[in-house]
Amino acid sequence: MTERVVTAESVDEALRLVKPVVRGLGAYTLRPYEPRIKLNQNESPYDVPEPLKRRLWERLADRPWNRYPPFVAADFIAAVSEVTGWPEAGVLVGNGSNELIQALLSVVVEPGVSVVIPEPTFTLYQLVSGVSGGTAVSVALDEEMRFRVDAIIEAARTSRAAMIVLCTPNNPTGRSLTREEIERIYDSTDALIVLDQAYVEFGGYNAIPLLAGRPRLVVLRTFSKAMAMAGLRAGYLLAHPELATEIAKAKLPYNVNFVTETIAAEMLRAHDLLQPGVDSMSAERDRIIRELSALEGLTVFPSDANFVLFRVEHGEISHTTLFNRLLEEDGILVRDVSKYPMLEHCLRVSTGTPEENDAFLAGIRRILGQ
Amino acid sequence: MTERVVTAESVDEALRLVKPVVRGLGAYTLRPYEPRIKLNQNESPYDVPEPLKRRLWERLADRPWNRYPPFVAADFIAAVSEVTGWPEAGVLVGNGSNELIQALLSVVVEPGVSVVIPEPTFTLYQLVSGVSGGTAVSVALDEEMRFRVDAIIEAARTSRAAMIVLCTPNNPTGRSLTREEIERIYDSTDALIVLDQAYVEFGGYNAIPLLAGRPRLVVLRTFSKAMAMAGLRAGYLLAHPELATEIAKAKLPYNVNFVTETIAAEMLRAHDLLQPGVDSMSAERDRIIRELSALEGLTVFPSDANFVLFRVEHGEISHTTLFNRLLEEDGILVRDVSKYPMLEHCLRVSTGTPEENDAFLAGIRRILGQ
Repeated sequence: MTERVVTAESVDEALRLVKPVVRGLGAYTLRPYEPRIKLNQNESPYDVPEPLKRRLWERLADRPWNRYPPFVAADFIAAVSEVTGWPEAGVLVGNGSNELIQALLSVVVEPGVSVVIPEPTFTLYQLVSGVSGGTAVSVALDEEMRFRVDAIIEAARTSRAAMIVLCTPNNPTGRSLTREEIERIYDSTDALIVLDQAYVEFGGYNAIPLLAGRPRLVVLRTFSKAMAMAGLRAGYLLAHPELATEIAKAKLPYNVNFVTETIAAEMLRAHDLLQPGVDSMSAERDRIIRELSALEGLTVFPSDANFVLFRVEHGEISHTTLFNRLLEEDGILVRDVSKYPMLEHCLRVSTGTPEENDAFLAGIRRILGQ
Repeated sequence: MTERVVTAESVDEALRLVKPVVRGLGAYTLRPYEPRIKLNQNESPYDVPEPLKRRLWERLADRPWNRYPPFVAADFIAAVSEVTGWPEAGVLVGNGSNELIQALLSVVVEPGVSVVIPEPTFTLYQLVSGVSGGTAVSVALDEEMRFRVDAIIEAARTSRAAMIVLCTPNNPTGRSLTREEIERIYDSTDALIVLDQAYVEFGGYNAIPLLAGRPRLVVLRTFSKAMAMAGLRAGYLLAHPELATEIAKAKLPYNVNFVTETIAAEMLRAHDLLQPGVDSMSAERDRIIRELSALEGLTVFPSDANFVLFRVEHGEISHTTLFNRLLEEDGILVRDVSKYPMLEHCLRVSTGTPEENDAFLAGIRRILGQ
């Protein structure tokens, strides 16, 4: 056998088998930084309390690691059902809500199927729709970053959309839909209405009470923000049990490991322990909005989430300069969202601890010379 | 607002939006049992060594749980590259190899695309192909559970298959492909050749050396069997870096949590600690084959994996009776695989500890009256 060399031509043999829609997609990437203060991913700044960590370890050490987790993460599902009041048969759990978004889209979206997505929003919906071969129909937010409810309904009707994905409160902009708006979108279309409520602990209408009697409504929740578990990955989906059964077909068996299952159930039952952190983040978000709004050269948008979006329109300091100087001079990492549609010159800052927010606000004032 | 009642008709509003191919699929389920001796899932019977568990906990306790894992599980990938010699750019890691199988199929398979799958084999491939809307082209094993290499090549050519999925050693049957057979399938087709080598630590040809110069070859490995980490979920995929980049587009960001990342990297670097367990399982598998073969009324198939497939053709005792009596009288759970194509009257037993295997063999002799 002679040694094989991979030429560009022979790699193409493999690449031509990849679906064209996939080859056309960019990869979802994020530049790694190691800042002193991390305000770029909307994480909770508060770690899981020590007693809870120790309690988990006792369970982990006891449990044989060589054995599969349960086929269905029963205790995690039971805990979700207890705190939401939604029946267990309508609950799916996964490694972050991302995994559930993927399962949901993959059982509905295929070539020829349209998905209405307000923009700008969380980029994963568009990415996953693209991999599934569907058509993403974008509906721009208005200039104040409000959802244009009539335009969403119109786009869904015109495109005969199978699904409308609504991130409420919306990331990276911050505004949310009211109960009445959600009802109106539901009643005016035939599509599945997917509500990603990753940030709803911080504000906006919590749509769980709307699920009863609305079999086209799906609610997604995550443990990565208010629940302080971004490192462990957990999320859940609530839907009509018959729809949940269909979505479950695209979920992989055993995918939630026993560590995630155990801690997610514990955290749900102990969520009172987290409430002070959530209250602090919501109050701090309001303070950041207030203090940024007082500065010249910034346009600040309202937010129901644990982050604040603002546009830099300052004579001398561009958003890029502000981003870089915060990082280099203060070790503070925010998120540059200026590449999103409509968000030219915009940055997004997550709510940290009061001390972290003080440092951010002091840094931005110094850089802007105010 | 009057109370909404979900009638069958209104649920159908939601269900009609689910892809017909998905609605037609059965769900992948497994009946839960809590046996005394668990020989049904091909897990390692040996737990992760205590010192390794403690070392992991020290790292876990230190790490802030509220922060996302790295975008790419860099340390896990580095460890895979170290032990396999394959470049990091061609390594993808996931929550078990299941997740990587799903990503791989979703970037290649769509309606109109064929995937050749020998049968019987691991049911997930067919399930995932189905969700993607592709056509699974089955090629039966021969009566001795050998791969029919010529028939596989012929089926791939006739169906113009984009992918051939080969589980080698094959689950639930146990035989594997030789190096020459893999090369012949590769050289005789234009398809992606996916080798799921979940059981290769126990026997059969390890195909990693074939990757160089073969950009259509993909190798999958898991931590759920020889690596004793079924509870934590981890797996990896090796492919040409350019192909890996395409597959990565269907993988969710941050999906490997920091617990899995940390322990998987440790376990790879400490895999010498696991070798005695693997050697014991391989030797015990050979003993089980020998001892079962001596019994009348059983047909035992060769195996390179950590399990043994056997057919029950006994005048008085059916496979169902044997399964039930092992469970009820001895607390031993094996796997009833009799519903797989070609596996009528067959059971599969995983290799346990020598003591567990003694109990299984004693039980089966007693029940068969031999």
